[in-house]
Amino acid sequence: MVKIVVDCLGGDHSPQANVQGCIDALAANGDITLVLTGGREAIEKELAGKEYDKARIEIVDAPDTVTGEDRPTDVIRTAKQSSMVRAVNMLREDDSVSAMVSLGATGVLLTGAVLRIGRIPGVERPAFCPVMPTMDGGVVGVCDSGANVECTPDRLLQFALMGSLYMERVYGIKSPRVALLNVGVEEGKGDDLHKEAYTLLKNCKALNFVGNMESRDVLSGNYDLIVCDGFSGNVLVKTTEGTCIELLKMLKGQLTSSLGSKIGALFFKNTLKKNFKKLNYQNYGGSVMLGTKKVVIKGHGSSKALAVSKCIEQAYAAVKNDLNPEIETIINSNTKGEMQNV
Amino acid sequence: MVKIVVDCLGGDHSPQANVQGCIDALAANGDITLVLTGGREAIEKELAGKEYDKARIEIVDAPDTVTGEDRPTDVIRTAKQSSMVRAVNMLREDDSVSAMVSLGATGVLLTGAVLRIGRIPGVERPAFCPVMPTMDGGVVGVCDSGANVECTPDRLLQFALMGSLYMERVYGIKSPRVALLNVGVEEGKGDDLHKEAYTLLKNCKALNFVGNMESRDVLSGNYDLIVCDGFSGNVLVKTTEGTCIELLKMLKGQLTSSLGSKIGALFFKNTLKKNFKKLNYQNYGGSVMLGTKKVVIKGHGSSKALAVSKCIEQAYAAVKNDLNPEIETIINSNTKGEMQNV
Repeated sequence: MVKIVVDCLGGDHSPQANVQGCIDALAANGDITLVLTGGREAIEKELAGKEYDKARIEIVDAPDTVTGEDRPTDVIRTAKQSSMVRAVNMLREDDSVSAMVSLGATGVLLTGAVLRIGRIPGVERPAFCPVMPTMDGGVVGVCDSGANVECTPDRLLQFALMGSLYMERVYGIKSPRVALLNVGVEEGKGDDLHKEAYTLLKNCKALNFVGNMESRDVLSGNYDLIVCDGFSGNVLVKTTEGTCIELLKMLKGQLTSSLGSKIGALFFKNTLKKNFKKLNYQNYGGSVMLGTKKVVIKGHGSSKALAVSKCIEQAYAAVKNDLNPEIETIINSNTKGEMQNV
Repeated sequence: MVKIVVDCLGGDHSPQANVQGCIDALAANGDITLVLTGGREAIEKELAGKEYDKARIEIVDAPDTVTGEDRPTDVIRTAKQSSMVRAVNMLREDDSVSAMVSLGATGVLLTGAVLRIGRIPGVERPAFCPVMPTMDGGVVGVCDSGANVECTPDRLLQFALMGSLYMERVYGIKSPRVALLNVGVEEGKGDDLHKEAYTLLKNCKALNFVGNMESRDVLSGNYDLIVCDGFSGNVLVKTTEGTCIELLKMLKGQLTSSLGSKIGALFFKNTLKKNFKKLNYQNYGGSVMLGTKKVVIKGHGSSKALAVSKCIEQAYAAVKNDLNPEIETIINSNTKGEMQNV
């Protein structure tokens, strides 16, 4: 049985979406038990009348919410009655809890994870690794997507090792094709950071490094993991998301803009629905934080129940497939030289 | 009469698209004369049988092509019979030529522009500023999109000043809303480069600075100019382009994937066509290089005749609206402090 703590506040649709996501996850997977943090009354209200295995749900009353405006280090120290900090502290203190899921403020979660849960020995900096759908029906991971806006070549190597392992262990991709996000595909492109990182990645035997990639190919399906500094990774992920949302919104709007297209839409509806579903990030859960001692999943703030349940599934898969022990092994056998100076 | 030299090699559809683009530009604008560089025979073959004002076209025989594999500084020095280098040298030496257009290797063009044409006094580094369509029917400029992978806060301020002026002068946008690409909208986000750039932009009275922006809002129409370092700007532009292309390709493919959607597609065709047209970057010409003594436009390698003619129009508009003299004025009255150390 894998015990996961779920922060039930902090999202745009909380606690409703969070609690429903928990119920769905319990139904889908008999090997999970959940601890829900948040306002007890609100959570009980959402649970009322629903069918679920009561023996596998526990509520911990922590009714306060943290926001992006709060100073992360202050919050972690003082806001002990917030649902997120309570979840972080449980993950730290309770050996029976293996993972946590939160949709709340990213900066606070990151700070909490680093300060309270701590890094896997050898890991320099934890990184976010969201997964996006590709046009060939697969997925691609992006690491780091924003935890580290300042990077070094050594860190990029660590992101590559952790991300590659994640894509293998949790998504079942054998020998993931790892590419470095750059301004051109040729070796020697980019600034010093990316030139040096290229050499490290190329020389690392534990990676299937396929070279530089340009961001126009992010959805091509030609890569399984894209390695990047947190700044450009953040730009990559948010641009893809924003462009998809804007385009689909425009098409949806125009589908009903004239009689002709209204009639067309009737016939075209199923095709369009299929595409919307494929591109709907709610199907892909959240962004794992790689490199922390216990598994932390950050869900999108706008997650609905489906995304929450997928986040819980991701957390389960990471725990069951020994992601963290494997990260410790791979980091320490491939980046020892660099790490000795840390 | 504005004289523009057009490199007729180097694109995916050259010389056909380039020459046709020249013919179209001449027809659209009676105030332009063009010099076409490339293989004389090939150009004459494309011109044969077409109607155009012969008095406004001149051919300069320079049949060699430069590629992205060539070392830019070598090419500029030695490949004098290449269509691009010949165009660059004409721009440098011939006072009657005001601008150039090329679809060729970006690195070579950038190096040629910096070494041969030179910077506007006060400009630290030239930058690329492509323009993309937004969802509200407008456009947004992105500066820098890749000329400078290493940046400083001072350079970002210069990109903002030059780009803002460009959007005003060439696209007629009064008081362009300038935003800084960052990992979050709040002040204080990002690495040191972006934190310091934020302060410079905020304190610059010549700018309508509206703060940080996240890349998911690039197409929103909320901004007229996005300021960024060349690395993340490159990621931003290529991700947007790639995502649009992949999504529209998928929709096009699926439109004819079943009988139902085939029937739907018949009705929906016009709406879809309208959208494709709106998003077709061929309508938006190329990327201006801001900060060089004479106007240089870099067209997309895959430009067809339409895009080439739009590039020529952009070059014309920049010259006619005194872009470069205005850049010199705005740079020297707003960045003097920084520039004294250059």
